Amino acid sequence: MTAPKRGRPRRGPDPERFHEIVDAAAQIIHRKGYSATSIQDIAEAVGVLKGSLYHYVKSKEDFLYAIIDGATQVALQEIQAVARMEAGPVDRLTAFVGTHVRFATSHLTAYSIRLREMRELGQERREKIQADGAAYNQVMRDVLVQGQQQGVFDAGMDVDLMTTIVLGQMNALTRWYREDGPYTPEQLADVFARTVVSAVISDRGLEGEGVEGLRHRIRAAPRADLAAQA
Amino acid sequence: MTAPKRGRPRRGPDPERFHEIVDAAAQIIHRKGYSATSIQDIAEAVGVLKGSLYHYVKSKEDFLYAIIDGATQVALQEIQAVARMEAGPVDRLTAFVGTHVRFATSHLTAYSIRLREMRELGQERREKIQADGAAYNQVMRDVLVQGQQQGVFDAGMDVDLMTTIVLGQMNALTRWYREDGPYTPEQLADVFARTVVSAVISDRGLEGEGVEGLRHRIRAAPRADLAAQA
Repeated sequence: MTAPKRGRPRRGPDPERFHEIVDAAAQIIHRKGYSATSIQDIAEAVGVLKGSLYHYVKSKEDFLYAIIDGATQVALQEIQAVARMEAGPVDRLTAFVGTHVRFATSHLTAYSIRLREMRELGQERREKIQADGAAYNQVMRDVLVQGQQQGVFDAGMDVDLMTTIVLGQMNALTRWYREDGPYTPEQLADVFARTVVSAVISDRGLEGEGVEGLRHRIRAAPRADLAAQA
Repeated sequence: MTAPKRGRPRRGPDPERFHEIVDAAAQIIHRKGYSATSIQDIAEAVGVLKGSLYHYVKSKEDFLYAIIDGATQVALQEIQAVARMEAGPVDRLTAFVGTHVRFATSHLTAYSIRLREMRELGQERREKIQADGAAYNQVMRDVLVQGQQQGVFDAGMDVDLMTTIVLGQMNALTRWYREDGPYTPEQLADVFARTVVSAVISDRGLEGEGVEGLRHRIRAAPRADLAAQA
């Protein structure tokens, strides 16, 4: 994409080049699975000798960690807009779902690897990623609790279980979503949000509008990134 | 479980023994992943020499197919009770969800392998399993269409997309459900059914009872296996 950096000292590993190599590694790991992928496969994909990859990493697991941690940090940063968003629980839950769906569909390869290959990471790294994941999920828990406190979400809902179910539902799209498929990320965000909000709404939350009115309202809900800037 | 069959001719492979070996193979494949599992690993787990496994299978893929096809046939058979069930769409959708959750939680290892390792099957076998899967999903599609025709489910719902979302949501439980975890299959079946039915219900479907009444009704809904016998 960028012009070659002439005259740049070539002593240390180049971060941009590392980024490209990690992307290539992600493509192969996604296609073949982590345990069937070798450092040699990655070297061939980027057109270098295996030995030169060791300027960037010590082991195959370093690639896996770079892929998974990279995606996790992006997700965590994007969900902060929902955490900070000043709005009612229906709008914030809609924004959470939309942010997650947009993230998952735009980082499909890396996020699929995170879901599928986490157990291949060493314990310390796995625990670090799990802690980041818990912080992410906590944003959704907080929104559900806000809705219960305001009486608009089902008071009998088990917030932990619902968080697990909803994230599982959205993450399942990494199994079937295709960029050239029949649905855009925005369409999916809308359908998922309607599904999730309908599942947690209380009669008071529905008052006057019914589920059909609610679903219309969700379609017009503000996006977290826009709302947080406003 | 049964007494040894003394005097039985030992010329052909013993189907019961094959079943035991497939179960052991499933445990290992579930733990290590298919590509990291060798025939030698399976032989060690069942305490036989590698060569004697070739009385039962020609390749490691034969084990994978036996695991996945076995689970798929059980699932297809169980869902027939929902297909035949004479009841309204809310009860039938509740029964579909309950049947699926009970199946997934009681065949957790084999079903997780089906979801995770399908791509490792050869094309012909994969297509056969996919066709069985499509027949299974069709039962849910039919229930959703029945609900739309009767006006109790959202007329604007994309039935194919909703089927994909709902099955993805329930299948995600194979990632976190544990037999010794905090929720019983019946509790999960109830929460999933409430989630799914709430997501597809129309105002007419809610008439008079509201979502809270609907959720109470789902808890008391008949089970497909019982209803089909009645």
